[in-house]
Order: sequence, then C-alpha cells, then structure tokens
Amino acid sequence: MDTRTSPFRLRIEHAQQALNQRGLAAVLVPSSDPHLSEYLPERWQGRQWLSGFTGSMGTLVVARDTAAVFADSRYWTQAEHELAGSGIELVKIPTGTATHHVDWLVEHLKAGETVGVDGDVLGLAAAQHLRTSLERAGIRLDTAVDLLADVWPERPALPAAPVYEHRAPQAPLSRAAKLAQVRESFLRQGATHHFVSTVDDIAWLFNLRGSDVNFNPVFLAHALLDVHGSTLFVGDGKVGADLRALLAADGVRLAPYAQAAAALAALPADAVLAIDPRRVTLGLRQNVPAGVKVVEAINPSTLFKSRKSAAEATHVREAMVQDGAAMCEFYAWFESALGKEPITEMTIDEKLSAARAKRPGFVGLSFNTIAGFNANGAMPHYHATSESHAAIEGDGLLLIDSGGQYLGGTTDITRVWPIGKITAAHRRDYTLVLKGTIALSRTRFPRGTLSPMLDAIARVPLWEHGLDYGHGTGHGVGYFLNVHEGPQSISKVIPEPQMAMEPGMITSIEPGLYRADQWGVRIENLVMNVTAATPEDGAFGDFLEFETLTLCPIDTRGIERSLLRDDEFAWLDRYHAVVRERLAPLVSGDALAWLIERTEPLP
Amino acid sequence: MDTRTSPFRLRIEHAQQALNQRGLAAVLVPSSDPHLSEYLPERWQGRQWLSGFTGSMGTLVVARDTAAVFADSRYWTQAEHELAGSGIELVKIPTGTATHHVDWLVEHLKAGETVGVDGDVLGLAAAQHLRTSLERAGIRLDTAVDLLADVWPERPALPAAPVYEHRAPQAPLSRAAKLAQVRESFLRQGATHHFVSTVDDIAWLFNLRGSDVNFNPVFLAHALLDVHGSTLFVGDGKVGADLRALLAADGVRLAPYAQAAAALAALPADAVLAIDPRRVTLGLRQNVPAGVKVVEAINPSTLFKSRKSAAEATHVREAMVQDGAAMCEFYAWFESALGKEPITEMTIDEKLSAARAKRPGFVGLSFNTIAGFNANGAMPHYHATSESHAAIEGDGLLLIDSGGQYLGGTTDITRVWPIGKITAAHRRDYTLVLKGTIALSRTRFPRGTLSPMLDAIARVPLWEHGLDYGHGTGHGVGYFLNVHEGPQSISKVIPEPQMAMEPGMITSIEPGLYRADQWGVRIENLVMNVTAATPEDGAFGDFLEFETLTLCPIDTRGIERSLLRDDEFAWLDRYHAVVRERLAPLVSGDALAWLIERTEPLP
Repeated sequence: MDTRTSPFRLRIEHAQQALNQRGLAAVLVPSSDPHLSEYLPERWQGRQWLSGFTGSMGTLVVARDTAAVFADSRYWTQAEHELAGSGIELVKIPTGTATHHVDWLVEHLKAGETVGVDGDVLGLAAAQHLRTSLERAGIRLDTAVDLLADVWPERPALPAAPVYEHRAPQAPLSRAAKLAQVRESFLRQGATHHFVSTVDDIAWLFNLRGSDVNFNPVFLAHALLDVHGSTLFVGDGKVGADLRALLAADGVRLAPYAQAAAALAALPADAVLAIDPRRVTLGLRQNVPAGVKVVEAINPSTLFKSRKSAAEATHVREAMVQDGAAMCEFYAWFESALGKEPITEMTIDEKLSAARAKRPGFVGLSFNTIAGFNANGAMPHYHATSESHAAIEGDGLLLIDSGGQYLGGTTDITRVWPIGKITAAHRRDYTLVLKGTIALSRTRFPRGTLSPMLDAIARVPLWEHGLDYGHGTGHGVGYFLNVHEGPQSISKVIPEPQMAMEPGMITSIEPGLYRADQWGVRIENLVMNVTAATPEDGAFGDFLEFETLTLCPIDTRGIERSLLRDDEFAWLDRYHAVVRERLAPLVSGDALAWLIERTEPLP
Repeated sequence: MDTRTSPFRLRIEHAQQALNQRGLAAVLVPSSDPHLSEYLPERWQGRQWLSGFTGSMGTLVVARDTAAVFADSRYWTQAEHELAGSGIELVKIPTGTATHHVDWLVEHLKAGETVGVDGDVLGLAAAQHLRTSLERAGIRLDTAVDLLADVWPERPALPAAPVYEHRAPQAPLSRAAKLAQVRESFLRQGATHHFVSTVDDIAWLFNLRGSDVNFNPVFLAHALLDVHGSTLFVGDGKVGADLRALLAADGVRLAPYAQAAAALAALPADAVLAIDPRRVTLGLRQNVPAGVKVVEAINPSTLFKSRKSAAEATHVREAMVQDGAAMCEFYAWFESALGKEPITEMTIDEKLSAARAKRPGFVGLSFNTIAGFNANGAMPHYHATSESHAAIEGDGLLLIDSGGQYLGGTTDITRVWPIGKITAAHRRDYTLVLKGTIALSRTRFPRGTLSPMLDAIARVPLWEHGLDYGHGTGHGVGYFLNVHEGPQSISKVIPEPQMAMEPGMITSIEPGLYRADQWGVRIENLVMNVTAATPEDGAFGDFLEFETLTLCPIDTRGIERSLLRDDEFAWLDRYHAVVRERLAPLVSGDALAWLIERTEPLP
C-alpha cells in the first residue's frame, strides 16, 4: 500500500488536529461501547475506523505526534498487517493485561498535561484505575471527550433490529422468576434499585434476544429495577406491540434508550443503588445524584446466567448433537471433495455455515469462522476474506474454529486436520496440544476453585517441551448468548473471588500452539461443571468435574503415538464412543461413514 | 481441665474489663510484632498468652461478651484442644485468608462502636484494609490501643541475644555490594530514603544474624537507608565493638532500637521515602512527617534475597548433602531400634536433632520438629511435648517434618514411613500424595509464571479421588534465614505480580493428605528454580524447571504400585540414584546400608 494514501494515516492526523484544538496531549479510544460489550455496534467501532485494526480487543492511543495500538499476542500478526502504512505503532502487550496503555501514557506524557477519553464508553472500575494512575503522575483526565464526534463525519446510527422473545421450552425459567431472583439479590445487598447496562445480562434477565451486533443475539438496552418493577431503556420501535404487552404483564415498563441517564439522575434521595463497577460506565454512573448511596457488586444476573439449569443443560446437549451432526456432514463433504474440486478457507466457511443452517434450532453463527490453513492457522483470530485467503492444497495442518447459536445453546469448537502428508514436527505439536485438552478435560477439582487456578493443567504437557500459547485456556460460554461470557475464565489473569467454579457453568477448554508463518494447532471442546460423585462422603468437600459437551471426532491420524500415554488413549477412545453413539442417529450416508471412520477406537 | 480455673478464661475476663474501661467494643490481638515476623519474640506473644492457642498464625478478637480465635485448617485440631475450657470460640477460616475477623467485627458490632488495636504491630496494608472495612460499616478504629500493656503484668522484655556476622564464603556477596544494590533500586524508584522493618530483610542486607526468636536466625532491628549510608536501629549491647567497626567501614551507623520512630519523624521535608506497605507497621508509618512523599513498593531486598546466587546455590547443595547424611544416620538408628527399645515422638525429635547437630555448618533447627504418628500426623503443625506424645508402636504411618539452619542454607523436609503393617487405605493415600510431589517437581514453566498458578498441578492426583489438603503446596525458603519467606508461594492465595517465578528462588513442594484422628501424609522436598534448556531457541520465551535440592530417600514400601505410572516410577528411580550418589560418600556402616536399601531402584 502506498503509505501516503492510507486512509488511516489521514484519520489519525485529523484526530491529532482535534486533540490539539481541545488542548489535549492524548486521547484514548478504547474498544468499547456504552454497554461494555465485546462485539460493538458499528457506531462504536471508532478504534477500527480510525486505525484500521479490526481485532476484537485493543486500545488506540492518539497523542500529539504519535499513535499506538495496544494488542495482545492473539492479534500481533494481524495488527502488523492491518497497521502497515498507517504510521500507527503496535505495542505488544501480554495476554490478560489491559492497562499497558496507562503505563505508556504515564511514560510519554508530562505532569500537567491532559488525557481525554469518552466516559460514556469507559467502565467505572477501569476509569477509577485510569484516573488514579494518571493523577499519581500529575496527569489530568478529561472524561468528556468524544473524539469520534469530532472526526467521524458519517458515524453510523444506533442499530434498529427488532427485539424478540426467547421462549419456553428453550427458556425454561420465566422472565418473572428471573426478575424476582435478581430483585431478591439486590434487596439482600441492602439496595433499593439496581441498574444494568450489559446487554447479555439484560437479554438473560428479560428472556429477550435481538440482533444489534454480529454473532451475539443481543440488543442495546439498559435496565433499572426497583422493588416493584423494572424499566427497559430500548430504542423506539424495536419492541413490537405484542411483546410490549407481555412485558407489561411482568411489570416491565419500556422507556426510550436515551432516557437511562435521566432515570438515574431522578433516583430518590433515599435510594440505594446496586451497580457492577465493571459492567457500568463512568458516564452513566456520573448521573447518579450525590446523595444516593451506591453499593458496588457483581451483577446478580452475571452469576445466575453463568450457572445453566438442568433444563437448560438438556437443551445444550441437544444443540451439541445438532452441531456435531452438521460437522459430520461438512467434514464428509470436505474429505470427499478435497483434491477433486478447488477448496479455499472461504469455501470451508460457506459449506460449514450451510451445514449448520440446516439444523433445527439454528439461529446464526456464534462468531466469525476461523478456517486457517498452515501459516493462517498460526493467527488465533484469523478470518479469511474474499481478498485474502488460502487454498487447501498441498500438505499441512488445517485449523477450523467455528460455532453456532441455537435456541437451546451456543457452540464453539476447534479441530485441526492433517492435509496431505504431515511431518513429525506437525505430529508432535498436534499431540502435545491434545494432551493439554485431555489433561484439563479429565480434571476433578473442589467446588469453588477459582477458574484461573486450573489454567496450568492444560499447559503442563506443552511447558514440558518449552512450548506455550499466548491466549487463555478457556472462556465462559452463554446459553443462546455471548460465546464469551464471565465470570469464570481459565487463564493466567489474576483471579477474583467471583470466578469460583460452580455447577452448571459452561467453559471452553482450548489449549493451542502457534508457530508464526508455519502452522497453528488448537483443540477445543466446551465442558460443563457437574457435581462429581466422590467416595469420601464429603469429608473433603464437594468436587466438580467437566462433562464434555462438544460432540465431534478429534483427528487421530495426526497423533504421535509415542507421546500419548495409555490413559490418554483411553480418554480419547471413550470420548469417541460417546460421539459415535450420540451423533450416529442423526446422520446417514457419507456423513455416517465419516463419523464411524473418525471415531474408530485406536488400535 | 476444670474450666473455672482456666488461666486463659481469667485473662480474657481481665482483657474485657480493660476494653470496657477504654470504652471499646472489641480489641484485636493479631499474631504480630513491630517487624511483622512469623516467629514472635515472647514479648509479642500476647495472643498466645491471652488465649492459650500456640499456633504460629491466628488472630484473637476480644469483644465485650465474647472472644474468638480465627485460625485456618492447619490449626483446627490443635486449637480445639488448646482453647478447651477457655470459653474462647474457634472460628475456622479457609487457608490463605486473613480477613475473616474483619467480617466478624462488621457482623457483630454496631455502627458508632469502636475497635481497638495496637498500630505498632499492624501492617500498613492490613491497617488500610481494616479501617476501610470497618468505616464502611460505621465502626471506628482506634490504633493506639496496646491491650497487652494493660493486662500482662509480667510481660517479657525485648530479647538481648548478640548479633553476629554472616561471613564469606557462605555469604558470597558483601554487605557493601548488597547495600549498593538496594540503594540503586530505591533511587530508581525516585526515593531518597528507604526504611526496612522486616528482620530477614535486614539480616540479608547487612550480612548479620542473631537469635532473638526461635528457629529464624534473625535479630530485632529497623534500618533506614539514604543516599550516603544507613542506620541500623538495634538494641544496646547486641553488637560488639569489632562488628561495630566493620559496619562503620561500610557506612552503617548504629542507633538505639527505640529511635527508629524518631528518625522517621526527623526526615527532611524534601525526602522521598520508599516503604513496603506489607512490611512496615502503621505505627512506624505514622511518624513520617506529612510533607514527606512516600513511595510504596515491595522491599528491593525481598526480591533480591529470594533469588539465590550461583555461589549461594553451591552452599545450599552442600547443606542438603549434610542434612541428608544426618537423615540417613537417624533413620538407620530408628529402623534398627524400632521394636527393640521404646521410641516416642519425643525420642525422634531428640535423636534427629542430635544427628543434625553433628554436621558441619549446623547452627540450629529451622522449625520445631513435627514427628506425628498416626492421628498426630493428621495435624499439619503438630509438635510432641513431654506432656503429650505418642509411642511408636503397633501399625500405621509416621510423619516426620524437620529442618535445619546451616551457615550455607536452610533445610525443610517431610517424609512418611510405614510402621508395622499398613493397610490398602494407607498405601493409596501415600501414593496419591507422592504423585502430587512428583507431578509438580517435574513441571517446567515459563519464567515469570505467578507461583500460585502452579498450585493445582500438585493437587490433580488427589483431586481425581475427591481428596485435597487445606494448606498451600509450597513456601519460599531463605538462605540461612527464615524457613518461610516470600514473595513466592505455591498456594491458592490470589497471586500478585511480585510472585513471578525467577531463577534462584527456593520453594518447598509439599502436598499432603490428612484424615482427622487417623493419619496424615505429606511428602516434601525443597526445589530451586533453574533455567531450563529448551530446544525452541527462545521462540516461546525462557523456561524454568525445578532442581530438587533435598536429598533423602522417599519410602517405596508404602507405594500402591497400581496407582503409579511408569514415568512416575522413572522419576523416583532417578531421584534415588542422585540421593545415593550424593550421600554415600558421607555415610558409613548402618547409615550407608540404610541409604543403599532405601534407594534401591524399583523392580
């Protein structure tokens, strides 16, 4: 690309002019929206619009003479490519950290200077940390700076997709029951009101879904609950009359989206407001009258929705069978077509999505399919595009990470397949990652164990050989909701008490290994915490184990047999027996033959 | 015991009268001194004097009508026994938590009431947490309450043991070099002064040792460093004239112990003081003039001394050989004498200590020997006394946890031995714990891994069977210093960035299993972080592995063979080959025969 014509270079220059006019030394553009979502409506994709970097996480800092994107190892290759020619520096940060840009500001700015940020998209806890860190260095923070309003002439409007109901049987617990459950929680905390901004919490709580962002079936809204009822702040026209009546019957009033701030400002002086400082923005918090007491605690709904009920678990298992059947159909086609017709990473996405779309209960993809052949597989967040993708030909490893949204659950699965002739190095990497997946999948652990404390278990087989991966081992998964949801996370992040493992939580197990410009390996299943039977009569407390939910063969042709122990082979055989038993009734013909072949016990 | 005559019941009643006179609702008596040490001089053993509970950790709360000791699972059995008849409640808290008494106060006291504590023995960080938590509930904190002065008529004086020098070759780095290293650190933090209260930091920094407390070769002192030199605040007459001259040559001035507070109060207005909020008390912090800027960071010496140099490591290996030889001599006697002469847990302590005392470089024990037969082994911090101990006769498991202080290192080792005929249940427990010790001992991990993240690796084999242990997996160990030292700790505590694993750190690996009133198992070695050779040319960063330092056979007669994998047997055989090779040159006769027999490869 001719660097002089990079649109991003020009946009950054405009941004620098704007910050000069406002007398600021730097402006932060976080990857964030007023709901602190992972997937942002286009309106809040300002970091991407300004810099060209499309990664799902990463902060842009625009300073007077420089600009930098802060991103972790998942995005380094991608960011280097996307930022080329923009003049924007890539600052590589360790995974699980999110405050390196703060240190950067402290280092690069002088005391007395001012940093601007839009408080409307800044989490309260993050804002407190940012302000404290900057003030310690004598740097001011102005949280009323919406740089995008200055420089983005054709900034997209709010999304207007309709809201729909998530109904029984897939929503087994009624809206009224959920609202009562949450109300009881905040009353027990001594609060009289509770304000919620996170859109997956709202979707769960009201048994509603939408399509305001890609992949996550959510809609933009805030909610305010009090002792008697609740108000949903949602865009005009998004909720139809029938649904409006159903909501009213459960004590849910509707109000315009923009009135959330005013509702907070109008709280009575004797109110006690419960909010989650990591799930509400500074901008909204600042509307709360000074006299109102604020109780900070994790949203009760965040904890409730993380623990899938027995009825929900039944639907999840059914969704997993449907998803596995789609995988069989796709892979049977793929293996028969390979070498006979041109197949690219794009074709894989199309065919796999088409196979999923035929399954009952399917709503959409749960994230952008990652089909990465060889070097492309070494980019954990790679996505093939019509401009840039690889053909599946020759030899190597093909990594496919994909998932679906079903009315009864959310899926997320990664498999790696040998193409042509693979080498001993491929086999070793593949087997070591598989050992990690197996090691954690079979772990039992005390109920209440903080999820990050389990992270090392999946890494030990890789660590033994001086290998590691830069991302977390597992993320929480929603129920027909976000494919990434908290509070639990099996990763190197510093744990918090809220991350205690409890029955019903669904988490991914996805160790990996990435050799830049060569290949990538990741083997991922979703697992659910279930109570383990222990012979010790509870003398050592309650124990949990993982029920592996994902049903799809794990390739055995790529295994280096000398690296796998007997007990690991036995785990794989047992898993394949379950996969065959559950999926066989749903597939036939080539797909059935493929399933049988790929689930053969190891000789 | 006749509860009416319990001295502790009477002391608590006196304390309650004192708090009534002062108008307090409750008083906290932490297990703490002005240096925030683990082992307390008698003068500060007020919690023990008041309550009778002798555990090394635990907080006493005396309220108007009640009193409670807060202790974790290591101490429950012991505390129940020792508190019997005192009227003091035992509050059982999870291991790794230290703030349950704060929640208790919030729950039991009313807004407007006042809690007293002696700020002179309260860590600054702990004080900030305590004050914030109480104030949130409207409870006042008075930190000028020395209850012990009110109620302890014959309170012991300050210890007066002499201070001596830790010399080369065992102290390879000179005092001047260490002082320069620390000075460079605090100057780099922008500080002009640095105040240190922790006695192991001071012992390390000045190459001095003492015997003011049991087991830890330290002396009571504070130190204030500035750009030009340093002042050591130490009791009159503890430092002889010769040593005083040596110190003066390195720019170290001596001042009376009690003048530390005045020296802080006299800091110049433009001083910038570096202190470690977890290693300095509120009482001392309060002397710093309001205008002086304070930089809070971990003591540089805490990080430096955790990383043993190559020269120190050589001495540690030699100390381990000496310690292992003492073990061989002791166990050879023990096995030959068993059944022929009366042996009790007390005899074990005497004979083992005598065997250690003969070794070159031995200074003293590094902690109270734990020799626990059967049910006594189920108490992780058991200590046999002349009033209460078991005879080693009949069948069962004998747990021996012991260690020595040598001029060239500190040892800590636990072994479990089958006595008479043991059962399948004994074997299973023993083998599962051994699997934990092996699993972690052989783990490689990226440099910088936070130590608590390794904790689960030792627990997985026990967790698999619904078993667990209530203590941490490992603690840092000093170099001829405290047997428990930070910053690293392999445990369930929430990690902090300071806990990054770095080369040269020495840590214990000691999983266990405790069946109350039946038996206990714990198998402990000390290990050192060493850089691992990796074939990946650093593409995945630096890796560390553990060098097992402790040299003593691990009993193989108690192993349930079906539970141990081939690779675990291989680890054990390799370990025994090293133990035999290193110890054989130092032992002869029965001790050599015992060593050979107990290090035989497994058939």
